[in-house]
Amino acid sequence: MSGYVIGIDYGTLSGRGVLVDTADGHVVASSAFDYPHGVLDSCLPDGTPLPADYALQHPQDYLDVLYRTIPRLLEESGISGNEVAGIGLDATACTALPLDERGQPLCFKYPSEPQSYIKMWKHHGAQGLADRLTRAAESVCPEILMRMGGSISAESFFPKLWEVWEKAPRLYEEMYEYMEVADWIILHMTGRAHRNGCAAGYKAQYIPGVGYPGPELFKTAGFRPKGDVTDKMPSPVIPVGETAGYLSEAAAERLGLKAGIPVAAGLVDAHVCVPAAGIAQDGHMLMIIGTSACLMVMGRDAKVVPGICGFVDGGIMPGFTGFEAGQSSVGDLYGWFVSNCVPGEYFDAARARDMSVHTYLSLLAGQKAPGETGLLALDWLNGNRSTLCNYNLSALVLGMTMQTRCEDIYRALIESTAFGCREIVENFRNNGVRVDRFTASGGISLKNPFVMQIYSDILNMPVEVINAEVGPALGSAIFAAVAAGCYDTIQAAAEAMKSETVTIYMPQAENVSVYDALYREYMILYQYFGKTEQSMQRLRSIRIRGIN
Amino acid sequence: MSGYVIGIDYGTLSGRGVLVDTADGHVVASSAFDYPHGVLDSCLPDGTPLPADYALQHPQDYLDVLYRTIPRLLEESGISGNEVAGIGLDATACTALPLDERGQPLCFKYPSEPQSYIKMWKHHGAQGLADRLTRAAESVCPEILMRMGGSISAESFFPKLWEVWEKAPRLYEEMYEYMEVADWIILHMTGRAHRNGCAAGYKAQYIPGVGYPGPELFKTAGFRPKGDVTDKMPSPVIPVGETAGYLSEAAAERLGLKAGIPVAAGLVDAHVCVPAAGIAQDGHMLMIIGTSACLMVMGRDAKVVPGICGFVDGGIMPGFTGFEAGQSSVGDLYGWFVSNCVPGEYFDAARARDMSVHTYLSLLAGQKAPGETGLLALDWLNGNRSTLCNYNLSALVLGMTMQTRCEDIYRALIESTAFGCREIVENFRNNGVRVDRFTASGGISLKNPFVMQIYSDILNMPVEVINAEVGPALGSAIFAAVAAGCYDTIQAAAEAMKSETVTIYMPQAENVSVYDALYREYMILYQYFGKTEQSMQRLRSIRIRGIN
Repeated sequence: MSGYVIGIDYGTLSGRGVLVDTADGHVVASSAFDYPHGVLDSCLPDGTPLPADYALQHPQDYLDVLYRTIPRLLEESGISGNEVAGIGLDATACTALPLDERGQPLCFKYPSEPQSYIKMWKHHGAQGLADRLTRAAESVCPEILMRMGGSISAESFFPKLWEVWEKAPRLYEEMYEYMEVADWIILHMTGRAHRNGCAAGYKAQYIPGVGYPGPELFKTAGFRPKGDVTDKMPSPVIPVGETAGYLSEAAAERLGLKAGIPVAAGLVDAHVCVPAAGIAQDGHMLMIIGTSACLMVMGRDAKVVPGICGFVDGGIMPGFTGFEAGQSSVGDLYGWFVSNCVPGEYFDAARARDMSVHTYLSLLAGQKAPGETGLLALDWLNGNRSTLCNYNLSALVLGMTMQTRCEDIYRALIESTAFGCREIVENFRNNGVRVDRFTASGGISLKNPFVMQIYSDILNMPVEVINAEVGPALGSAIFAAVAAGCYDTIQAAAEAMKSETVTIYMPQAENVSVYDALYREYMILYQYFGKTEQSMQRLRSIRIRGIN
Repeated sequence: MSGYVIGIDYGTLSGRGVLVDTADGHVVASSAFDYPHGVLDSCLPDGTPLPADYALQHPQDYLDVLYRTIPRLLEESGISGNEVAGIGLDATACTALPLDERGQPLCFKYPSEPQSYIKMWKHHGAQGLADRLTRAAESVCPEILMRMGGSISAESFFPKLWEVWEKAPRLYEEMYEYMEVADWIILHMTGRAHRNGCAAGYKAQYIPGVGYPGPELFKTAGFRPKGDVTDKMPSPVIPVGETAGYLSEAAAERLGLKAGIPVAAGLVDAHVCVPAAGIAQDGHMLMIIGTSACLMVMGRDAKVVPGICGFVDGGIMPGFTGFEAGQSSVGDLYGWFVSNCVPGEYFDAARARDMSVHTYLSLLAGQKAPGETGLLALDWLNGNRSTLCNYNLSALVLGMTMQTRCEDIYRALIESTAFGCREIVENFRNNGVRVDRFTASGGISLKNPFVMQIYSDILNMPVEVINAEVGPALGSAIFAAVAAGCYDTIQAAAEAMKSETVTIYMPQAENVSVYDALYREYMILYQYFGKTEQSMQRLRSIRIRGIN
């Protein structure tokens, strides 16, 4: 089982490569590279201005990550390229771009055409088209919506593809394929086009054994190119855990690796973290907690769970149904509050103690017992991803009195995100998906013990925090190790190579009972503002009407 | 009609005297004096510690106001004491103290006994007794509760009196009378004991022609002293607008005035502002807007209006029913926000522009159109006085997104107090009390035009702001002028002597329609959190249980 593999993770602002010992998952070397073009959200590199809701990237940056990090990994580790037995990679998704027949990005040819660039996962230029697809799906194929949280997100694949046809029809004609960036990098390394089953399932409504949504959906919505929509999509779909191709002579030479080594099919960056956390069984949830939160859990069978982002058979690991849910605002909520509602004296006091203002606020907020602030909040600053699937919702704080201090509100906001998490967990359970173990990963899980203790108390579960310093890249290395034949199964590889657990937060009985009472209050607000009364939606519509 | 009178206003932290020309209300001299002992809320002058919810005062301070300000008024104006034709005064209420048979405050004899001091209007030591009185009234005399907003406030007279009996029974026995401080000062000046009809009506449930609540109420509640409760209350009750007594030789000599001049019966400090604002007809509302807001309007007939603080026939002016409602948090809400939720850079920017942070926030918030913040708030930081009469309610803000800035919340809080005001106005109208003209007075009305324009837009009424620089003292001077015979009626005196109107804010049609829509949203929240769902009450109870 010994040997070395490389995992590469394409994040939002940078890519990271790791060189890992397959025997124990030891990260021998790690190298990150910031995308030189960053996020293109105001203009293209040639100055062409972009609409407000655009978020594009330059494909050269993705190639640069490959050619900058891999040689550096070899150099730093002192390990020969010949010893590297396989490669795995992951990327944000749906993050996709149009290619010509030779696999070349079309933006190299049309640098002034926004539609020719990579559209990032958070590109929202196709919101209107996504809404039209959702409305069409409601009549044509409601079962697909039920699998995907009730709507087709603007962040998913087909709205982005449709937007190319809508805004740049000639580019659409000329385009040979519209491809996830992870798959394109593998095409670049191996010469083999394919589509990874993870992104296909979660981001393009692909159902193994059934396929993509039928042409009726697109026709009804108004997306009517010549030929089928799927004509522009690469095949085959390669399931999670299988090999997508083998390193070409040309790529091997440029990278300093051995030609012919296997490259595992890519995964979405969140999903690849599940094996990296050592999770190899059903019922063990992983939460990645950062600006937003992603919650993943595997089940033995497919179940329709209302309000989650989606479920895909074999979408995370072969043999399991992979379920995904999400919270739109977590760190974003805490950060918004600190930027907009915290008086200067807190910053001064934090500085004097040489701590971050988050740490200082946590310190103050931690001096109260659960319930003692008298506050309750709804965590919907960016809307609610799960389980209401409604981006027109907004945040709420109630319970303020003359005694309320800034740190009390900070605490209430933290509690609100944990209540939102509990609602997702209970919704899984109520729909037949077990959640009996909970692991947290991501920046906040390591930086703020106060937050994690609140999660444990509110979930009434131990919260295991892992050291995921190299992020999803270790997960990609695990898939590389299986592709390289070091392990027979992802489970075995995950067990051997997983990140270490650094802390386990245990629920405190006296807190649990207060939080049970507060959770009932949270759920009353959740029900009222999420379902019964459309106050937030109407306020939003007044806000938008008032501006226009 | 020419001549001079003196008006004295006893506020919360200081007293103010004015010497006024009765011909036109011109304030010839004005003199304020801060109470040397201030508010006794942590300990008595001898160091005796006080419970948390106590707010006491020292009666010597009230005498000092008299002997410091009146001579100074004469000195500054150069007007002889012989030219002063009458005195009027007002004070906060219920602000009351126990006296011996000679009219001496009992705290002079028992300086270590908290019950022997003046209990301020905001003394809350008798909250539990007030609750017991309310429960008893629900079964014994519900009609009294209906006149007084559904409960007997801890700030009213009988709970404060009962507390003396409960906590210091021997002092209660020894006490000859428990008197409003305004009436005691008049007793001091004239030698005549009485009770002013304004405070008796609004603060001691006195109904002209009927009397105080019957003994059954007190017996049922458990307040069972020897004899009747009313044994300790001065009589007669002297109606608003009449003379309570005549300046004694002794007082005249000490004050430098002429003995025998009339002293008008006192009023509550808020109510005396109505004639000072030149209001002499029904349907013309006066709002005094400061840390909280008091809303007064006169009607032709008595009407039971649910949720107001009370109504008293002749309580503000003879010939009208005086209605009073209130908002517990207005300036308090804005101030709380600025103290607890505004980042340092706003203070810096305000300083750089040489303006208060309130002005700076108003400037920023004013750059948005109504509805453009997308926010909505409930103004219940100190609970809701009218029309929910519930101090267990708390504040709420909803609609926050990543785009929400601190000034947006500030604006939403201002709007929430104006919506609360509109709800009170509409409640009056819906119960047959006309409100067709609106005057504002008090600090905020002069200092913040942004706030007043929002009130005008939300009320959809012109808002007239008067220059009430000397506050209620001018109103007391108006009553003094009638007592002195300069005018036959309060109306005539008010018309001649009123404060000048400095600004009239006109409702802007385009704002009115947006605010109509937002007010409907406010009322949905009002209904839900005020009546339907007890979320705020339960959170409060969890907060208190959690602490104990």
